[in-house]
Amino acid sequence: MTNATFDVLGVGHAIVDILATTTDAFLNEHGIAKNSMTLVDGYRAEMLGRSMKNPVEASGGSGANTMVGVASFGGTAAFIGKVNDDRLGQVFMDDIRHAGVSFDCAPAHGKVATASSHILITPDGHRSMNTFLGCASALEDADANPTRVASAKILYVEGYLWDTDSAKSVIRAAIARAKAAKRKVALTLSDPFCVGRWRDEFKALLASDVDILFANEAEAKALYETEQFDDAFQAVRKWGKTAAITRSESGSVVVEGGRVHIIEAEPVERVVDTTGAGDQYAAGFLFGYARELPLAVCGRLGSIAAAEVISHVGPRPQVSLKSLAAKAGLI
Amino acid sequence: MTNATFDVLGVGHAIVDILATTTDAFLNEHGIAKNSMTLVDGYRAEMLGRSMKNPVEASGGSGANTMVGVASFGGTAAFIGKVNDDRLGQVFMDDIRHAGVSFDCAPAHGKVATASSHILITPDGHRSMNTFLGCASALEDADANPTRVASAKILYVEGYLWDTDSAKSVIRAAIARAKAAKRKVALTLSDPFCVGRWRDEFKALLASDVDILFANEAEAKALYETEQFDDAFQAVRKWGKTAAITRSESGSVVVEGGRVHIIEAEPVERVVDTTGAGDQYAAGFLFGYARELPLAVCGRLGSIAAAEVISHVGPRPQVSLKSLAAKAGLI
Repeated sequence: MTNATFDVLGVGHAIVDILATTTDAFLNEHGIAKNSMTLVDGYRAEMLGRSMKNPVEASGGSGANTMVGVASFGGTAAFIGKVNDDRLGQVFMDDIRHAGVSFDCAPAHGKVATASSHILITPDGHRSMNTFLGCASALEDADANPTRVASAKILYVEGYLWDTDSAKSVIRAAIARAKAAKRKVALTLSDPFCVGRWRDEFKALLASDVDILFANEAEAKALYETEQFDDAFQAVRKWGKTAAITRSESGSVVVEGGRVHIIEAEPVERVVDTTGAGDQYAAGFLFGYARELPLAVCGRLGSIAAAEVISHVGPRPQVSLKSLAAKAGLI
Repeated sequence: MTNATFDVLGVGHAIVDILATTTDAFLNEHGIAKNSMTLVDGYRAEMLGRSMKNPVEASGGSGANTMVGVASFGGTAAFIGKVNDDRLGQVFMDDIRHAGVSFDCAPAHGKVATASSHILITPDGHRSMNTFLGCASALEDADANPTRVASAKILYVEGYLWDTDSAKSVIRAAIARAKAAKRKVALTLSDPFCVGRWRDEFKALLASDVDILFANEAEAKALYETEQFDDAFQAVRKWGKTAAITRSESGSVVVEGGRVHIIEAEPVERVVDTTGAGDQYAAGFLFGYARELPLAVCGRLGSIAAAEVISHVGPRPQVSLKSLAAKAGLI
């Protein structure tokens, strides 16, 4: 994995989160499904935005968060995503570049706005997300041009992108280009419902091009249509390539060929907001993998990053993950 | 594993638990270490017994609890342990036989009483145990005679027994007899402090005679002197025989040769009292193993038994584990 400018190149939905604390009554009044992610249209997004009190904007998106995490470890990261040339698009680009992630995709100039997720946080700490995908899935072939794809050791792909045909065809081209350049391809399953929609395509992709799989317990079970984690785990082992399966407070399981590592969750004083735990786990793992650290260390870097991000509100690290990894004696 | 009268023969401390609810003030007044097990002498046991209000007696002891669990699964179980011919000894013998476990060891007639554990339960659900070992470790060679040892497919040994030389020599003879009769030998590490005291002897035993190892996470880490669960797990895999490592709400990991199974904890509506979770896990696993069920099923039987016992006060099952296993479609 030499001669690459970047450790990891992520592709995903470029989304700006708009967060506000609220009450259960507000959720009921606006018919918002609690503690889950619902896709909404532009009209509803605008309406929610007007109803929310003192909202805070913060750049997000699963794959983008992961790239910010890789950069926080001291890794070199780039991101492919689509924003509009509107105010939120500028917020997204400023934030990701400020975090040290390379971002070169030209904004769209159409009428479809930058994606946003209106997130309502109730006093019990639950987050109810209303995501308007906007132009985020309107990726263009040039965004994933061969030079850009070849510039990173690992191409990291969000499963969420499978939900639109346009994004999917760009991703397929990007994967082919990564393979042609002898780069590694990593896929995160993103969400159990997403797996339900695209199970067969994901399985075909695993059989052909994917080298590294990220999934949480629910996603792995959904992929192999089983209720028992062990069945999913055995299927992943049989697949035989590299996989990291996260299990919330039970840590993670890392598999590669005949090797299995069982990684503990890093202790956390107080879990504040679990959003982004999986994204940051992937960041730690990918950073370690790109730097050719031992597999168990990759998993531990993932645990450290996940622990940091669940200790505060927001899906991106607030302290240097590099310093945390150094403190733990891992880098 | 044919031609055996019993599925499992357990050897351990025969103890009667004496339980009472109390206050933190009572613990302070009597200098009792909260939420842990302290060994006490006969005088202190008697004094505590006199101070406790409305105590309830219930037969216990780690290995004995496990044998009761095996019987509850419909397995055939026997127990080797030492009681005195006093009232508590009679309670122990009545209870274990009533649970369907064969118990043939002659009671001691000396001055040393049957072992008891005075257990104080504070309003926060914590249990503070004061264990008087009494005659429980005064096992005699005849208790583990060759015929008895050969009568079971598996000899199951409590690590706690290593704490007295007399018990240890009987156990060593029992293990030799089990091996001579081509029976399997299982060892539970019992307690991380116990591992700290007898690490080298346990390791030598693993290298020679033990076929099946039971340990919780803390015990496995103590055995291999590591802070990382994965290091202990890799050491167990390298050992190469059969092991079940329990991880509380994170379930368990079952290993045999190159095989690894990751077993989830069975969901529990409300955890009432975690005492005996490890003992009942071992019961389920041993029952499945003796009946030559697949390794992952052995682990799931362990999870089911552990979930039952932590749903109520007391370390022995209150409903038929056989019926729970059937309901889960495992037997």
